Amino acid sequence: MLPFARVSIIGLGLIGSSIARAVRAHMPTVALAGYDASADVRDAASALGLTDDIADSAGAAVTDADLVILCVPVGAMAGVAAEIAGDLPADAVVSDVGSSKAGVAKALAEALPGATIIPAHPVAGTENSGPEAGFASLFHDRYCILTPAEGADRLAVARLADFWTRLGARVETMEAGHHDLVLAVTSHLPHLIAYTIVGTASDLEAVTRSEVIKYSAGGFRDFTRIAASDPTMWRDVFLANKDAVLEMLQRFSEDLSALQRAIRWGDGDALFDLFTRTRAVRRSIIEEGQDDSRPDFGRLHD
Amino acid sequence: MLPFARVSIIGLGLIGSSIARAVRAHMPTVALAGYDASADVRDAASALGLTDDIADSAGAAVTDADLVILCVPVGAMAGVAAEIAGDLPADAVVSDVGSSKAGVAKALAEALPGATIIPAHPVAGTENSGPEAGFASLFHDRYCILTPAEGADRLAVARLADFWTRLGARVETMEAGHHDLVLAVTSHLPHLIAYTIVGTASDLEAVTRSEVIKYSAGGFRDFTRIAASDPTMWRDVFLANKDAVLEMLQRFSEDLSALQRAIRWGDGDALFDLFTRTRAVRRSIIEEGQDDSRPDFGRLHD
Repeated sequence: MLPFARVSIIGLGLIGSSIARAVRAHMPTVALAGYDASADVRDAASALGLTDDIADSAGAAVTDADLVILCVPVGAMAGVAAEIAGDLPADAVVSDVGSSKAGVAKALAEALPGATIIPAHPVAGTENSGPEAGFASLFHDRYCILTPAEGADRLAVARLADFWTRLGARVETMEAGHHDLVLAVTSHLPHLIAYTIVGTASDLEAVTRSEVIKYSAGGFRDFTRIAASDPTMWRDVFLANKDAVLEMLQRFSEDLSALQRAIRWGDGDALFDLFTRTRAVRRSIIEEGQDDSRPDFGRLHD
Repeated sequence: MLPFARVSIIGLGLIGSSIARAVRAHMPTVALAGYDASADVRDAASALGLTDDIADSAGAAVTDADLVILCVPVGAMAGVAAEIAGDLPADAVVSDVGSSKAGVAKALAEALPGATIIPAHPVAGTENSGPEAGFASLFHDRYCILTPAEGADRLAVARLADFWTRLGARVETMEAGHHDLVLAVTSHLPHLIAYTIVGTASDLEAVTRSEVIKYSAGGFRDFTRIAASDPTMWRDVFLANKDAVLEMLQRFSEDLSALQRAIRWGDGDALFDLFTRTRAVRRSIIEEGQDDSRPDFGRLHD
């Protein structure tokens, strides 16, 4: 038996449209409704046939749903939740895909008193945005973290876990605050660093922009992929997960200072020790199936 | 007419073995000699048939060469140059593939007085090391930067440029000091940052190593590829290009502090402005043919 029969997706960008495609691929009998605040995105979603129905408002998209997934930037969650509050069926499960969870959980609980809310975060994506960028296999073998509040409806958690498992994801459950700390390291800090270094490289006087572009294969280009991610989404993440991000950033800065000192004083052993230690981390990630085992991410070399 | 007839490669790791394979592919009549300080690498190179001959010493490898390419970590360049000094034919061109150039140029000039030295740096590589990791198309469409000293033999520069062009590279000429500044941004700083963040993530108490691995698809895994690069090579680069690296690191740290402040004070506009600006850099890199245009570097999603 399918965990949900009528799924409503609010926000049809990379993640929302990928969920729609994955539901079509793995649960083709599920009725899909969709909505996006942008008329252009709604038109594109219609043209792509992402959902059976594209509604004219968030409220109209959820009237018949047994699962509603909010796929909007975390700063927009409270507003969207307020928009659907009057139309949400009493027995519907409400979830989301936000990259930070404690703040979103609070916002949803306030906007939707009495609703069954199970926040979630599929740890997956690409640097591209919009309904055209999505694809059905985006969640395949990626983790989806559920952060139910204490005392949350166990059946609803199990149904949502079943839903994500069917989309190909590996489901884990975690306390929202711990999620925010873990993702601050594995996702938010890397994005912050990548955005920063790309900005730094763009602002030099002694090195031209054209030189930065031409010689980017030395390593820089890797950072530009992440730094091409959606600006609205990421602004919201840093504002929403401020404390954990600042904490991780402080640790990173301390470690960077130590390395800076090692370079200044010519301490080759300290550099060599760190560079040896970090190699093992990549091996573990590949063994765990979380990255492509081919060299250079499988980039084409011909 | 081929630019060189007898090429000797000293150091048969990722870069040296890729040059050997590329010469075989594009200039099959060239006689190839090779040497590596490690007996294991020499055996592997023999088994792979990388060169026509594997010598027992660096000197023996160059006796008959008209081009010698030193493919060893930059800290080992002076020692290798001293080893070949007594056997180097008077008319041979000596080059290298080091990631920093001013220091290497000085070391080679001192160890090989009177020799024709044209330093070079092919801006290409993967995270893998060793003779098995090389492949013939590594330099295809990548830049190779020549940094001839003032007054260098123009014919030798032209022949070396021809050589690298035949291997598929785009050749540019640059002053060594400027090269070191440019590469500090496009390569050395990115490596330093990647090594640091992977170290930071490995040392947390509140987040387990297993969590860092499992949820790395949020961005962190991108950094682990670079942080899996050869430790000896990179230790040497940071020590050799200290001034430029420290200068770029200082600028990066200032920019990171500004972003940290924007997060702390909830300045969403400052974040959004930077995140919008950095998107354009990736587009330029793809247009310039320096990265894969496919989303997520072309990673497999199935």
